[in-house]
Amino acid sequence: MTSFIQTLGAAWQRTGSLLCVGLDPEPTKFPAALNGRSDAIFEFCREIVDATAPYACSFKPQIAYFAAHRAEDQLEALIAHVHEKHPGLPVILDAKRGDIGSTAEQYAREAFERFQADAVTVNPYMGFDSIEPWLEHKGKGVIVLCRTSNPGGSDLQFLDTAGRPLYQVVADLAANTWNASGELGLVVGATFPKEIETVRGIVGDMPLLIPGIGAQGGDVEATVKAGRTANGTGMLVNSSRAIIYASKGEDYAQAAATAARNTRDTINAFR
Amino acid sequence: MTSFIQTLGAAWQRTGSLLCVGLDPEPTKFPAALNGRSDAIFEFCREIVDATAPYACSFKPQIAYFAAHRAEDQLEALIAHVHEKHPGLPVILDAKRGDIGSTAEQYAREAFERFQADAVTVNPYMGFDSIEPWLEHKGKGVIVLCRTSNPGGSDLQFLDTAGRPLYQVVADLAANTWNASGELGLVVGATFPKEIETVRGIVGDMPLLIPGIGAQGGDVEATVKAGRTANGTGMLVNSSRAIIYASKGEDYAQAAATAARNTRDTINAFR
Repeated sequence: MTSFIQTLGAAWQRTGSLLCVGLDPEPTKFPAALNGRSDAIFEFCREIVDATAPYACSFKPQIAYFAAHRAEDQLEALIAHVHEKHPGLPVILDAKRGDIGSTAEQYAREAFERFQADAVTVNPYMGFDSIEPWLEHKGKGVIVLCRTSNPGGSDLQFLDTAGRPLYQVVADLAANTWNASGELGLVVGATFPKEIETVRGIVGDMPLLIPGIGAQGGDVEATVKAGRTANGTGMLVNSSRAIIYASKGEDYAQAAATAARNTRDTINAFR
Repeated sequence: MTSFIQTLGAAWQRTGSLLCVGLDPEPTKFPAALNGRSDAIFEFCREIVDATAPYACSFKPQIAYFAAHRAEDQLEALIAHVHEKHPGLPVILDAKRGDIGSTAEQYAREAFERFQADAVTVNPYMGFDSIEPWLEHKGKGVIVLCRTSNPGGSDLQFLDTAGRPLYQVVADLAANTWNASGELGLVVGATFPKEIETVRGIVGDMPLLIPGIGAQGGDVEATVKAGRTANGTGMLVNSSRAIIYASKGEDYAQAAATAARNTRDTINAFR
């Protein structure tokens, strides 16, 4: 059995990178050479993947960008491409699903059987019932939303619940109650480094997926110092737009590679 | 512009029904006659829709059941069928999406442009940023998860936040802060009639989508008395499995019609 946590740990060691490249393809931002191609979304992402793979520990396609364009087949092909050409780099399907019972089982089939993702992001609002069905898929990762990097993230996540904000309850549940599979992780935004530090204190070595550096403006030094584990890993530091749209010209893949390498190096300077 | 809230209000008056028929198609539960058909999911649901339409105020397909089987095209065809053959009965896409910014915009395109749903269910954990992009689609309904009917629903939703449980904060935000479009609704499970009553007290006449009767065992009388508005509407009382799997034989559509009519009548006995 392949284990997401073991694969990720090996990827951190082998690549020396904590960078997760987010794949949020928007056809209106593609270079002109891709115009009119029926596989433009796949081709754009494939070029990004192949160019940035030397500098990344993982990839994170966002399913909405494919679904809005009836491009599920291109997402399937993209993930298959990563597995074939870049084995050992886990693919996290960013779907933020949240449902229960047989519906959650269907979502898990979608993510893990249809799309062959190694891990998926999920939403905790419906509680453990909405996490448990994913755990039936042995070795697959489940990354639970905890503290998100958007301004409105505070609307619920920062509410005081008996002395601590809601996101800390989620971190505690994920680490100490829900993690029967040992394959859980958490999403914690880079815009709140002190909160990353608090979450790290609650969850031990659990992997943290950290969006919000790059285009969203989080401070890399503060983020890395707050989120790293004792061996200097434990984080998937995600950057999407700052890498994939580093250039809007025909040199987009090369520009993405440069941006990915620079981001990896900036992260590593503070590990 | 078509308005979800206006269409729903008209449907309640015209049909005399508060029943929402949930479409959670599982091929392993289909009658043998559909075996091997490439459009089995569409065909099963179409038969259910046509048979139950006289007794329903709306339909609620659950997207996971289509996505797990690469059947998005059948979901598109199904919703188009409802609009063509049963105009005036709104379709709620049960997707429970929750994301922000450009990602949420892509999800909204998926639900409203690709699938042509009249409303969608969304998850509030990421706050108003995750609601707002949906509101750009004028006249479309956005039904926010508030209190869900599963046991684990209490893990977060029942946490005390400064004197009231989290789900009441969500109800308050949805009714009094987030509802700029006037097209919001809430999901409140039938397993907690007292909480439905509390939510109704917070949100005025806002529509409540109420799962959990039928297969999940909620008490219809207590649910209806707790959730109805002054004119005896205000609720989409959802039943899925108890209707669509009323028979596993070739008479499934006829059995679904009977179950839908009986459920409508049971609901109406307490309005």
